[in-house]
Amino acid sequence: MSETDRLSLRHPDGTTTIYIGNHVLEATRGAVTRWVEGRRMFVISTPRVLSLHGEALDSLLSAAQAREVLVVPEGEEAKCLEVAGSLWTEILTRGGKRDSRLIAFGGGSVGDLGGFVAGCFLRGIEYLQMPTTLLAQVDAALGGKTAIDCGGAKNSVGLFHHPAMVISEASFLSTLPKEEIRAALAEVIKMAALLDPLLLERLEGRLPELLKGDPESLAPVVLAAARAKVRVVQRDPGEAGERRLLNFGHTLGHALEAAAVDGSLRHGDAVAYGMLFALRLALNRGLEEAVAGRLEELIQGLGLPPLPTYDIDVLMALMQKDKKNQETGLVWVLPESVGQGKMFDDVEPDEVRDLLPAFLEHPWTA
Amino acid sequence: MSETDRLSLRHPDGTTTIYIGNHVLEATRGAVTRWVEGRRMFVISTPRVLSLHGEALDSLLSAAQAREVLVVPEGEEAKCLEVAGSLWTEILTRGGKRDSRLIAFGGGSVGDLGGFVAGCFLRGIEYLQMPTTLLAQVDAALGGKTAIDCGGAKNSVGLFHHPAMVISEASFLSTLPKEEIRAALAEVIKMAALLDPLLLERLEGRLPELLKGDPESLAPVVLAAARAKVRVVQRDPGEAGERRLLNFGHTLGHALEAAAVDGSLRHGDAVAYGMLFALRLALNRGLEEAVAGRLEELIQGLGLPPLPTYDIDVLMALMQKDKKNQETGLVWVLPESVGQGKMFDDVEPDEVRDLLPAFLEHPWTA
Repeated sequence: MSETDRLSLRHPDGTTTIYIGNHVLEATRGAVTRWVEGRRMFVISTPRVLSLHGEALDSLLSAAQAREVLVVPEGEEAKCLEVAGSLWTEILTRGGKRDSRLIAFGGGSVGDLGGFVAGCFLRGIEYLQMPTTLLAQVDAALGGKTAIDCGGAKNSVGLFHHPAMVISEASFLSTLPKEEIRAALAEVIKMAALLDPLLLERLEGRLPELLKGDPESLAPVVLAAARAKVRVVQRDPGEAGERRLLNFGHTLGHALEAAAVDGSLRHGDAVAYGMLFALRLALNRGLEEAVAGRLEELIQGLGLPPLPTYDIDVLMALMQKDKKNQETGLVWVLPESVGQGKMFDDVEPDEVRDLLPAFLEHPWTA
Repeated sequence: MSETDRLSLRHPDGTTTIYIGNHVLEATRGAVTRWVEGRRMFVISTPRVLSLHGEALDSLLSAAQAREVLVVPEGEEAKCLEVAGSLWTEILTRGGKRDSRLIAFGGGSVGDLGGFVAGCFLRGIEYLQMPTTLLAQVDAALGGKTAIDCGGAKNSVGLFHHPAMVISEASFLSTLPKEEIRAALAEVIKMAALLDPLLLERLEGRLPELLKGDPESLAPVVLAAARAKVRVVQRDPGEAGERRLLNFGHTLGHALEAAAVDGSLRHGDAVAYGMLFALRLALNRGLEEAVAGRLEELIQGLGLPPLPTYDIDVLMALMQKDKKNQETGLVWVLPESVGQGKMFDDVEPDEVRDLLPAFLEHPWTA
C-alpha cells in the first residue's frame, strides 16, 4: 500500500478533508466508517462506475444503517432538473432525513449533480465526493461547486456546497480510456502553468509516462494539482477573484468545445487549444517567448487530436454568449510568467477575430 | 409618513437589512435604488399582488437597467420544481447574469420560491424580500430559509439563502382578509410566548384592534416579532438548536393542517390549536397554570374557527411522518414560563394519544 496524503480545504461552512493516493480507500476506512455509522446512506452513481468499482462501497458502507444506491445516466445527460427531481423524490421515498448522507461516486457529472442534490435536500445534507476520473480528482470534485444544466445553459443552476470529504482513489484511474487521461492532464497543465512551477516541471519531465494512466505515477500529480486548487479556492471561495484564474484556456476553449460537431472535442482537449490561443494574446501583452514556447511544447506533448473545422462567426458568437455569465464583459485569463496569471478585460473582439484564422489553420507557432 | 424601523440580521454570508413601517417604501427608495442601479431586475410575483400593489415597483425599480416581471400562481401551488425550472429558463432567456438581482414580491410562498430560485441561479444571485402578507412579514421573509415542495413533502428541497434586504411595508396589510390577519397573529403569539414577554403584553392589550388589520397598529407588532426572530436566527442560523423553538405549536399543528379536509384550517389557525395542545403537555411537565391560562386566554381572543373533525390515528400517523424530517425522533417545543421555551424529546406517543380525544372534543381547558 502506498502513502495516503491528506489535504484540508477550509471554507465558509467548515472544512473538507481530501484524501489522495493509491489504495486510499483502505487508509480512509476508519474516517468514513465514523461518518456513515448508523446513518442512512444514499449513493449516486452510474452503471459503468458501479460495475467497475462498485465493490469499493461494501467495506466503506458496512457501518451504515442502510445503503440506497441511486443510478443515474452517464455524463452530462444526468445533470438536469428532471433527474435531480426524481432523486429527491426517491431519497424521500427511501426514508431520507436531515441526518442522512450522500456519496457522489463517479466522474465530474455525478459529482456536480450529487453535490446539488445533497445541497438542496432538506436545505442541505452532508456528502462525500468519491471521484473516479482524473478530471474529477484534479478539479471538479474540489471546491464545492455543484450544478445542473437548465434552460440550455451548462451549470446554470446550482450552489456552493462543500463535501465533508473527498476520496480520490488513484487505482480507479487504471480503467480510464487514454483520451480521458490526456484531456484531464490538459487541465493539470492549466493549473501548473498559472499556479505551480514545481508541478509544471514534474509534468515536463514525466508527461509520456503520465499519459499511460499508471495510478502510481498519477497519484503525486493529483496531489499537487489538488493542493494548487485548494490554495486558490481557500483564498476565494465564492469565485469573486483569484479563483477565476482557473479559467485559463476556457474562454476560447468553451467555444471550441460547444461548436465541435457531435461533441467531437473533449472539454480538456478544447481547453488545451484554448490555452494555446491564449498564449498568442499573452505574447501581444509582453509574455516572454521562452515561457510561451515552454508551455506550447508541454501542450504539444499531450498528443491532442486535430482541431475540427470551425466557422469563426460561430466561435465569436459563442464567446459573446459566454460573456452573459460574467459580471463584467468577457475576461481572458492569460499567463504573465511561469506560475503567474492575470485576468484581462481589455481584449477587444477585433484582436481575437484577427488572430483566429491563422490559429485555426495551424494552432502551433512552431 | 410614519417612522421606519431598521433591523440588521447578521448571518454567515453577510448582513440582511430589514425595513419595517408604514410607508416604508418611500423611506427605502435610496437604498433600493443603489441596489438596483444599472442592473437587470427580475420580479417574482402573483397576479393578485401585482394588481393590488404592483405600482410600488415603478419608483423602486426606476434605476434598473431592465425590469422583468415573472408571474407565478398564488399560494403553495407555485412552490414546485416545474415552476422553479421555468423561472430559471425564463431568467436565462431574458438575459439574467451573475450580477442580476431578484425581488420576491408576495406572500410566504412567493418568498420561499423566489429565494430558492435566486439561491440556485448561477450558484446564487442577490435578492430582496418584499413580503405583502402579515405572516410573511413576521416570519417567512426573515431568516433565509427558502424551499419548494418535492416528492409530496412540503419544503423538502431548498437552501439557506439570505436576502440582501427585507422591505415590510405595513400599508400592504390593509388589503388582507381578516382571516389571514388572525392566522398570522397566531404565529406572533407563538414568538411572543417563548421569546418576548413585552410583545406578549402588547398583544394582550391590543388584540381586538390588531385583528382589524390596521397598518398603523400592526407595524409595531411586525417590528417586535421580527426583532425576536432576528435574535433567534442570529444565534442559530442553521437551525441546529434554538431556532427550533419557533416550532412551538407546529408538531400537532402541522398534522391538524394536513388532515383538515380541503385545507379548511389555515396554517396559523392550526398552529394556534397546536399551541393549545402543547400547553396541556407543558402542564404535565410543571408549567404554572397561571401561565398556561394566560396564553390560552390570548389564543381564545383570536376567535379561531372551530376545529374540524379528526381521526386520531391519522393525526398520530402524520406526526410520525413529520418525525422523518427531524434529526432525532419527534421533538415537542413547550413553554416553561413566560418568554421561555424548551425542546422535549421525551414525549411518548401514548401520552399524546391519551390527551388527544378530550382536546379534540373541547380544545379549551376553561
